[in-house]
Amino acid sequence: MFKLETENSIKFYSPKNEVITKSLPVFYNKEMKLARDVTTYIINQLKPSRILDSMCATGIRSIRIAKECNVKEIVANDINPLAIKLTKKNAKLNKVSLSLSNKNLNILLYEEKPFDYIDIDPFGSPVIFIEPAISNIKNNGILAITATDLGPLYGRHPSTCRRRYNCIPLNNYFRKELAARILIYRSQIIASSHDKSLIPVFVDAGQYYIRVYFKCTKSKSNKVFKQHKHLFYNSKNLEYSFDYFPESTVHGPFYIGSLWDKSLTQNFNLIKYLKDESTLDVFGYYDIHKICKKFKLSSKIKISTLIDNLKSSGYKASRTHFSPQGIRSNIEIKELINHLT
Amino acid sequence: MFKLETENSIKFYSPKNEVITKSLPVFYNKEMKLARDVTTYIINQLKPSRILDSMCATGIRSIRIAKECNVKEIVANDINPLAIKLTKKNAKLNKVSLSLSNKNLNILLYEEKPFDYIDIDPFGSPVIFIEPAISNIKNNGILAITATDLGPLYGRHPSTCRRRYNCIPLNNYFRKELAARILIYRSQIIASSHDKSLIPVFVDAGQYYIRVYFKCTKSKSNKVFKQHKHLFYNSKNLEYSFDYFPESTVHGPFYIGSLWDKSLTQNFNLIKYLKDESTLDVFGYYDIHKICKKFKLSSKIKISTLIDNLKSSGYKASRTHFSPQGIRSNIEIKELINHLT
Repeated sequence: MFKLETENSIKFYSPKNEVITKSLPVFYNKEMKLARDVTTYIINQLKPSRILDSMCATGIRSIRIAKECNVKEIVANDINPLAIKLTKKNAKLNKVSLSLSNKNLNILLYEEKPFDYIDIDPFGSPVIFIEPAISNIKNNGILAITATDLGPLYGRHPSTCRRRYNCIPLNNYFRKELAARILIYRSQIIASSHDKSLIPVFVDAGQYYIRVYFKCTKSKSNKVFKQHKHLFYNSKNLEYSFDYFPESTVHGPFYIGSLWDKSLTQNFNLIKYLKDESTLDVFGYYDIHKICKKFKLSSKIKISTLIDNLKSSGYKASRTHFSPQGIRSNIEIKELINHLT
Repeated sequence: MFKLETENSIKFYSPKNEVITKSLPVFYNKEMKLARDVTTYIINQLKPSRILDSMCATGIRSIRIAKECNVKEIVANDINPLAIKLTKKNAKLNKVSLSLSNKNLNILLYEEKPFDYIDIDPFGSPVIFIEPAISNIKNNGILAITATDLGPLYGRHPSTCRRRYNCIPLNNYFRKELAARILIYRSQIIASSHDKSLIPVFVDAGQYYIRVYFKCTKSKSNKVFKQHKHLFYNSKNLEYSFDYFPESTVHGPFYIGSLWDKSLTQNFNLIKYLKDESTLDVFGYYDIHKICKKFKLSSKIKISTLIDNLKSSGYKASRTHFSPQGIRSNIEIKELINHLT
């Protein structure tokens, strides 16, 4: 029923499952190792002292934080008693001390004294857990939110996106970044009702997830609304603008501000291209293959050469961790096409 | 410290306070008698069986429901131990049986089995209690929400309205109705994230409060978004439209649908004009005095005569409980001015 897994220096028991589904009470997802690498990096940078791993499953994230970071207290919670049993066993196996909690997360968040760091990583949409987390997090605390409901966020299920995120999504080639921007928009809207302000300090995306780390401060400011904009998009020529123009469809609102706090990315090397792209405060990116296909261009140019060309023409340009064929640049699409032909 | 009050057939103890402020742990507000009359009316019409009076204070609403309605169970909750002590004493005095609860409301809502009727009546904004209530209410249950933060809802504090209700308010002569429409918009947005749908079935407004009764159903439908519209407004000629026009300012989004279920108002006589106005599905109303002042008209016409004139010209018209000088009509403002001169 259980097998011994290894992640970094940690050995731990995990249920034997061939396929991961929502119906499993507890599971370990190898795909998320990199996300956990990032978590311990961020915690080591920002040094929160009291941490909540809100849906701990096997306990792997809590145990890694206990092993790899210097924190005062880690509460590992899961609504499932099996998960807590397993987390207890795994903590013992790795000789780390965790405070275990077997509660409905929303009750825990309303009962417990505030945390410096709350990690929300549910199966599917995190949206219904954001408000309780906001009501619990300490001033200047960190809130990490994972979304895996990429269908709605990518605009494949726009009506679900509308309901969950109050946003009209856009299913185009930079939808992975838009997914993060939708999650940020929705989280900020929830926080503002509580007179709190959420500032994204780090975003990372894998094949099956989007993760956003926010700094949460008490604030009665409405500045955040200035960073929420609708996007007007023309699917024929791929042009877009935050101002209305004819023959465009309307999408959003999206958060349009910075995704990364540069003090967190300047020494960050766990994810290729992320450090580079974080230096460019640009909305969206270009998927070169998709653009070539769309405009029937047979460009043979290498992405690295294209980036060099753009830079020598005076543009900012970098690759992006959101897409292997993507480039992030402040060039407009019409000009970019000239560089591809 | 306490004095004996009377409301309908009920005698009950209430703290002696000259002025009602947020800092009082428990208070009784005579101004709300009419709102409670409406509550028992609605409960007698809709017959919910298990009721939560979420912030019961002296217990007056719970005791009135117990005396005046035929319900199975009433949970009277308050976070303040004094309030529960007082409610217990008052329930005994009136020989009614209540289930008493002395909890943080959000914890109660996440712990308890669902209710058929939840009443939220806080001092100030109800917005942070809506999500927990939504997560608890039974399918087809009734959610009654009171807002007393009329400054933000009336547009006197637009930035607070933006934060709490995610809405740009409009401080004009029909702001009392807009306040209800903002509260409805915000509540519906919160419900939609939980795959639930809130349909307003009754709205009543007093000098210091707005109350909305919603029917809550499970629904993955996005129909509700079609009833959320921005309003474009010209403060010079008081014209407005849901479509953009030049020289207008943008406000909202507002809920633009019906405020009353006619099956609840056809025999309703507790509030003057409310039954009449509920038969007209019209957005907004006209304040005749303010319009005459604005356009420097010295109209001497009686409101009742004006309504008769409009009706004989083929328009729908009625008075409105939102304003003693108000009329509700499907006439446009330009035409209305012709009738005033």
